[in-house]
Amino acid sequence: MENFSWLNAFKEIGKRVSSEMEELFRGTGAGRALGKGASGDTTLVLDKKAEDAVIAVLEEARKNGEEFSLVSEELGEKSFGNDGVVILVDPIDGSNNAKYGLPFYSTALAMATGRTLADVNLGYIINLSTGDEYWAIKGQGAYKNGIKIKTATRTELDLISFEASVPKRDLDTALPLLKAFRKVRCIGSTALDLAYLASGTTDAILVPSASRSFDYAAGWLITKEAGGIVTDTSGNPLDDCRLGLERTRPILGAANRTVLDKALKALGVSGSTP
Amino acid sequence: MENFSWLNAFKEIGKRVSSEMEELFRGTGAGRALGKGASGDTTLVLDKKAEDAVIAVLEEARKNGEEFSLVSEELGEKSFGNDGVVILVDPIDGSNNAKYGLPFYSTALAMATGRTLADVNLGYIINLSTGDEYWAIKGQGAYKNGIKIKTATRTELDLISFEASVPKRDLDTALPLLKAFRKVRCIGSTALDLAYLASGTTDAILVPSASRSFDYAAGWLITKEAGGIVTDTSGNPLDDCRLGLERTRPILGAANRTVLDKALKALGVSGSTP
Repeated sequence: MENFSWLNAFKEIGKRVSSEMEELFRGTGAGRALGKGASGDTTLVLDKKAEDAVIAVLEEARKNGEEFSLVSEELGEKSFGNDGVVILVDPIDGSNNAKYGLPFYSTALAMATGRTLADVNLGYIINLSTGDEYWAIKGQGAYKNGIKIKTATRTELDLISFEASVPKRDLDTALPLLKAFRKVRCIGSTALDLAYLASGTTDAILVPSASRSFDYAAGWLITKEAGGIVTDTSGNPLDDCRLGLERTRPILGAANRTVLDKALKALGVSGSTP
Repeated sequence: MENFSWLNAFKEIGKRVSSEMEELFRGTGAGRALGKGASGDTTLVLDKKAEDAVIAVLEEARKNGEEFSLVSEELGEKSFGNDGVVILVDPIDGSNNAKYGLPFYSTALAMATGRTLADVNLGYIINLSTGDEYWAIKGQGAYKNGIKIKTATRTELDLISFEASVPKRDLDTALPLLKAFRKVRCIGSTALDLAYLASGTTDAILVPSASRSFDYAAGWLITKEAGGIVTDTSGNPLDDCRLGLERTRPILGAANRTVLDKALKALGVSGSTP
């Protein structure tokens, strides 16, 4: 299957997960978000329903002759006939938000023709709360709802979004950088952080703890194709990160080179590799 | 006009501001959020349109014989015939989000029959990104989209949302409390922070810098009527805060007494006043 067909498959997944979530949230009588009755069980329903929607589309692709290998937050690694093509899946990025009723969660999907981040050819993120879709095909630019997007051109340290999966540990690491920005946000979805960076909303993102490839692969390509830069927190490229289930490296994303250099300086790193 | 009629007026304002925002965002071709083309000018348009929608409804109320005094983030203080009834207005809480294209912003409205927070009889918040409405009438409980809401009953320090209007100054103050929680969020709208606290989504909120009454008056009543507690960061009640344009006190909100006491302890305060 060509890149373009995988994009269609990803959009179909986005449509089905959206519709499952709409139905689930309508069921709680609480609008778009899960109400206070939401429990651990409800989250399981949510994750399971999203995963089922993903798998249904991938099984259709398999039946149509596609061969690939799956790397999924929920299902782990699973071969669909060929390990040369890798499909990375995070059925719900921001499960905690969905569980508690905060309307910031997404589905993130990526396709690669090898086992490292540099091999990612297609990235797709859907904001399940707003329906906004972000995607990029390597070398062909990045899009939001079909309209080409670019990262911000401003060079001030204006707006950063960060993640702190374990506040006690991550906030100290993040603090020097956060204090260098005019405004900070913490929304609880790395995929959405990258989507907002790519579309010019934010100027930088920081994930101080080692992240897993399915969390950032799609957003990495989308940001790159939109003109941004995503490195680890020492300014090193992520190209050689293995596309697997393990945690790899902390993430620093910037709208442009000037912002990246300023951010690295705030973190105490002298400069980024070219 | 009775409380109930003011609630209807507030809902009418919510409907009109929502529809103005929908139209404005559709104009950018960027879905529900302002796209990267959003500039300072666009924000002015946004604030102005929201304010106009508010004023139109209030002028209709005045024509129908209502007398009141307005306290608004945008317009300042303005008498509509009677200073005994105070209408507090934040046309767009989360303007920065709206400006940059982050879909977290709201309109917050409150009605009081005196000049201190204790005189607030009605609070109304509409999440302009999702359409969710939160309101409370003193002594009659709190509601989200017409369904009664209660704050969370869990007593662990699970999920906190905080604001940092000036990160350089506010993050150091917030840090000890943020590190005591399992998860943190920073969404950029005090009114929404309080709405999420009231509806059982979050367990606590922190605004380390002195806030203005129109930022928290509606959410204060909604949280209180939902069973939560809102104090300053020393655990003192806010009842005597003046309903004006000036900054009053930093805000700490908790789903219940146990969470409040744990939060005050994390902030280095020994205990809350009863």
